[in-house]
Amino acid sequence: MIEKFTVIAPGLLGASIGMAVHKKGLAKEVHVWARRPEARETLRVQDWCHAAPDSIEDACRGSSLITLCAPVERIIELAKSIAPALDSNPVVTDVGSVKSKLSRQCHAALSGKGRFIGSHPMAGSEKTGMENAEASLFQGNVCFVTPLEESDSAALELVSEFWNALGSQVIQESPEAHDAIVANVSHLPHLLASCLASYLSRALPDTGRLCGNGLKDTTRIASGDPHMWRDIIVQNRPEIIRAIAAFQEELQTLHSEISNEDDFTALKMLAEGKAFRDQLDG
Amino acid sequence: MIEKFTVIAPGLLGASIGMAVHKKGLAKEVHVWARRPEARETLRVQDWCHAAPDSIEDACRGSSLITLCAPVERIIELAKSIAPALDSNPVVTDVGSVKSKLSRQCHAALSGKGRFIGSHPMAGSEKTGMENAEASLFQGNVCFVTPLEESDSAALELVSEFWNALGSQVIQESPEAHDAIVANVSHLPHLLASCLASYLSRALPDTGRLCGNGLKDTTRIASGDPHMWRDIIVQNRPEIIRAIAAFQEELQTLHSEISNEDDFTALKMLAEGKAFRDQLDG
Repeated sequence: MIEKFTVIAPGLLGASIGMAVHKKGLAKEVHVWARRPEARETLRVQDWCHAAPDSIEDACRGSSLITLCAPVERIIELAKSIAPALDSNPVVTDVGSVKSKLSRQCHAALSGKGRFIGSHPMAGSEKTGMENAEASLFQGNVCFVTPLEESDSAALELVSEFWNALGSQVIQESPEAHDAIVANVSHLPHLLASCLASYLSRALPDTGRLCGNGLKDTTRIASGDPHMWRDIIVQNRPEIIRAIAAFQEELQTLHSEISNEDDFTALKMLAEGKAFRDQLDG
Repeated sequence: MIEKFTVIAPGLLGASIGMAVHKKGLAKEVHVWARRPEARETLRVQDWCHAAPDSIEDACRGSSLITLCAPVERIIELAKSIAPALDSNPVVTDVGSVKSKLSRQCHAALSGKGRFIGSHPMAGSEKTGMENAEASLFQGNVCFVTPLEESDSAALELVSEFWNALGSQVIQESPEAHDAIVANVSHLPHLLASCLASYLSRALPDTGRLCGNGLKDTTRIASGDPHMWRDIIVQNRPEIIRAIAAFQEELQTLHSEISNEDDFTALKMLAEGKAFRDQLDG
């Protein structure tokens, strides 16, 4: 069991982690640091939170495992700011959805003070904030763990076991492989949904009353927070560009097949798409 | 009230129409013709079906309103085959999902024998077949009614009132305008979902275990019947090509914005997409 476990910047993910650690008895004490004083007040009355000190240094001192739970663009700065206070060579992880730059910079920022291993639990929701947190959030979901070649192997093992204990299925990938995968399975679908919704808003402004459930499903994720997605674009730009370009080729192929009345090849694509989609529910 | 109402080729839609007409008391008698003898046997024991004759001519003779409920590529041939039997100048409608060619050819095939007005109830489902039919299928859904300029105005009124009585919200458009609208709100989303699923099946064959609900929503309709969608491509080719090309432009714009680090404009697109999607649930 961990003696002292620390959550930095609890939103939906950080508070859910704290609750799950408490509920599963993975740590003797859960310490939490939040930037806003009101959030610290709220934390102090939660049964899963043993201390919510005013200073981020106090939250980290003596900790064995620290999770940085801020939005992806703020994690590197948090790693830099906690480094001077680390006195116990803790393992440090995070929940950022893009990993390459972040993993290298956090590793460097903590060098000699703490051992960084990146994580990305795929457990978001359209809901955000501590008030929607729940201990079961990670149960049954995938969590990527993304060590560098130079990462500490004991730290890697601890982080993997940690997510397993929270109920996640852990997948280990390099930060670069992770970013290519999520560009395809998460960022590309989101941008296509947004692009379709934005296209229809101009092509057919009164689509609302005409649309069926197909369009609603296909565009549902376009309701996500635009600022969060802008930040993901900024963080994962090269892989997102690659994924869009590869999809554009696929779409151009379909466009040509339809234009050339090559309906047999178009049918093959429809059947491949169906086979792939059907197994996602399997 | 209609004396004799006829359903030709009942699947999910045709049988649901028959049930609804019976339940709402819109016709004294519902006559149904199905191609397969076993289907006719099944029909003969349904409380909503007053007669299921062996010959399509008997089903149509003396009828006031005939609905052709076959898949879109078979409707013109059905109109041709019933024309000689029509003795009561009936109103004839259909449920085909593409309207331009169909409306003109059915109008011509029935000329002097019956008055054709095209319909397209947007009330499909991933389920098909008479066994999934229900009287409430049209309640609250949009139904396009697509007259030609030369269509009989009394027939247009009857068909519009008919769908209203079944609970649909009727939208009147020319067949050409209809086909452009559904290419954008229905066919384009479907083809994008199929194209994304087919792309991922090759780019990342083991996506299944990695994907979240976003990808599942975005690709759900790719599970539709490939042959049905191939037929829709064949029927609505020019409008589908136009819709794909317009979407390709939108996607290329986004690709350029991301490549050029014009993140402010990309954010604007994300926000427009969100605004559009949010109102679909309104």
